[in-house]
Amino acid sequence: MAGRREFIKQAGIISVAAGLAGYGCSNRKNNATGKSAKGMILTFKPYEVELKHVFTIAGSSRRTTPVMLTEIEFDGITGYGEASMPPYLGESHETVSAFLQKVDLSGFNDPFLMEDILDYVDGIAPGNYAAKASVDIALHDLVGKIVNQPWYRIWGLNPDKTPGTSFTIGIDTPDVVRQKVHEAAEFNILKVKLGQDNDREMIETIRSVTDVPLCVDVNQGWKEKTAALDMIHWLAERNVVFVEQPLPANLIDDNAWLTGESPLPVIADESVQTAADIKSAYGVYSGINIKLMKCGGMRAALKMINTARSLGMKVMMGCMTETSCAISAATQLSPLIDWADLDGNLLISNDVFDGVKVNRGKLVLNSRPGIGVQKL
Amino acid sequence: MAGRREFIKQAGIISVAAGLAGYGCSNRKNNATGKSAKGMILTFKPYEVELKHVFTIAGSSRRTTPVMLTEIEFDGITGYGEASMPPYLGESHETVSAFLQKVDLSGFNDPFLMEDILDYVDGIAPGNYAAKASVDIALHDLVGKIVNQPWYRIWGLNPDKTPGTSFTIGIDTPDVVRQKVHEAAEFNILKVKLGQDNDREMIETIRSVTDVPLCVDVNQGWKEKTAALDMIHWLAERNVVFVEQPLPANLIDDNAWLTGESPLPVIADESVQTAADIKSAYGVYSGINIKLMKCGGMRAALKMINTARSLGMKVMMGCMTETSCAISAATQLSPLIDWADLDGNLLISNDVFDGVKVNRGKLVLNSRPGIGVQKL
Repeated sequence: MAGRREFIKQAGIISVAAGLAGYGCSNRKNNATGKSAKGMILTFKPYEVELKHVFTIAGSSRRTTPVMLTEIEFDGITGYGEASMPPYLGESHETVSAFLQKVDLSGFNDPFLMEDILDYVDGIAPGNYAAKASVDIALHDLVGKIVNQPWYRIWGLNPDKTPGTSFTIGIDTPDVVRQKVHEAAEFNILKVKLGQDNDREMIETIRSVTDVPLCVDVNQGWKEKTAALDMIHWLAERNVVFVEQPLPANLIDDNAWLTGESPLPVIADESVQTAADIKSAYGVYSGINIKLMKCGGMRAALKMINTARSLGMKVMMGCMTETSCAISAATQLSPLIDWADLDGNLLISNDVFDGVKVNRGKLVLNSRPGIGVQKL
Repeated sequence: MAGRREFIKQAGIISVAAGLAGYGCSNRKNNATGKSAKGMILTFKPYEVELKHVFTIAGSSRRTTPVMLTEIEFDGITGYGEASMPPYLGESHETVSAFLQKVDLSGFNDPFLMEDILDYVDGIAPGNYAAKASVDIALHDLVGKIVNQPWYRIWGLNPDKTPGTSFTIGIDTPDVVRQKVHEAAEFNILKVKLGQDNDREMIETIRSVTDVPLCVDVNQGWKEKTAALDMIHWLAERNVVFVEQPLPANLIDDNAWLTGESPLPVIADESVQTAADIKSAYGVYSGINIKLMKCGGMRAALKMINTARSLGMKVMMGCMTETSCAISAATQLSPLIDWADLDGNLLISNDVFDGVKVNRGKLVLNSRPGIGVQKL
């Protein structure tokens, strides 16, 4: 791990240098002379967000998450973006750096050509959705700043209609769980990661200290549909409002059966990455969990929301552990959704952005243009 | 008909007066004093667009189409909108006037709250999609003017990626058809209305004077699936690129069978009105024809495009006979679509707006903010 960290740091220095020197080089020259800078300059810097608590989900534990902080500069205005790379999703400082080094925005002289720019970025290589999201978010921040409007206004959304965000209580010993629940007293809904042997114990531990509504994320951790249905009935009696990805994504018929029988909405997470996956989730799940790092950014997320709504499906938005940059970007869309799980920035101790806030559990958008962040 | 026209004219005067006096009255007062005008004022005026040629589709002929011209004024800026009401869709000057008189925008002090405003308008009564579109278009024009950007830029679209528009050749005698085709020499694709007894004669008449690609709109005019398939094969050999609504919308299994067997894409028109209808068209048609007057406006149309694309379906946009106002609004979205049939303004002799143009058959967006129109 130490060796890996060392490599990451080196890669970071290399990538930053490459980012500065390799892209928009002629544009930088123009900037230096103060003359008409037309092209966009993408730069990026690796960062490691530190979790306040060791984070355990079905299958893994960790204390830090690698992120990549991106910037797109155009005509003296800078847009901020971010990629977050939890290890189980396959991206890393190395892969994101390698991808971003291939992104050459010097051919685009107009940031408003977002569809073209993001189609170009998407076409560079398959996958790499966190890397792609980091470009998408920075581009949105830039364009929002150019028109001097936050994205929720550009999209015509009412900032008062943000939902409350759930706050995630990781799997832990009963004492630590109780402590976490006390720390989360501000939130009106808590998210519980289940899918291990102590599921009922987790719920009962939480219920020993609070009656607040819960949502449950199983991360494919249950393996058998009738046992899953029994568990959902048990959870429904304990004020749980929905269940996320109870069974493995590949058990399509079982998931469809479970959704049909379930007294609670069943939400797809691992089953739905991008908009193209929604048609397969229709009739199988009640709704979808959209994450910028899964789908490639804000533009793709809006398309997914529109699609899910047209199909009559529920929509939640989730996140990774990430700074207030990516969280603020996702929150711009949140007036359109049913449930938010946008607490990633609240779980870290070394945020580098000021952005959306949480007030009595509810997400609070500000009036800053773009994605609404300022560097700390 | 004369009596009906007279009634319409009277209704028009009443509705305009009601629009001015009944809505935003207190806001007008504020305007008059020059003090903080906060609310939006909706006004509307009936108009009758005159067709250059008598227009015949399966089932009806006509020489004029009633439209309603709307305006939303806010803070000294005016947004323009339009409803078009071809009689076979059930809306009229009377119904649109009655609907718009119920629209009270005085409670909305911020035009950027488009989702809330349009949800409110949509909730006033079911149906009335042309009336709703006239509010949606005016609101988009207003907001685009406030941010001083055309909507294609706000949506991140490349104006160079507009498609060519088809130009509709109505059903007529061979001599008139040949004359119409000559007049349409500028267009790179022609639309032919079929579904009467002389379908092959129509195509052969057109093919006697031009080899330009054709698309075919049957308006549910064919009644039997195997005969329809035979006809589509015949059309495919004559450079027809897609077929719109060949069979009645209620023959779902027959339409699905036909789409599966057809050598050409089969597009839903009458089968798909709003975003909620797309899930029923998935697996039944290759794509959908989106019209602002069917779905309720630009916002709904974008949601439909996103949904159809996520489902892997083709998208065309169509229109009614309407002025350059509604056509320019639809064209803002056209860089996202496969085929445009946005020639409604070209078919009339008394346009009241200057807006998008057609150059060598291709739609040409301008750089004006909002929907890109100026009153003539």
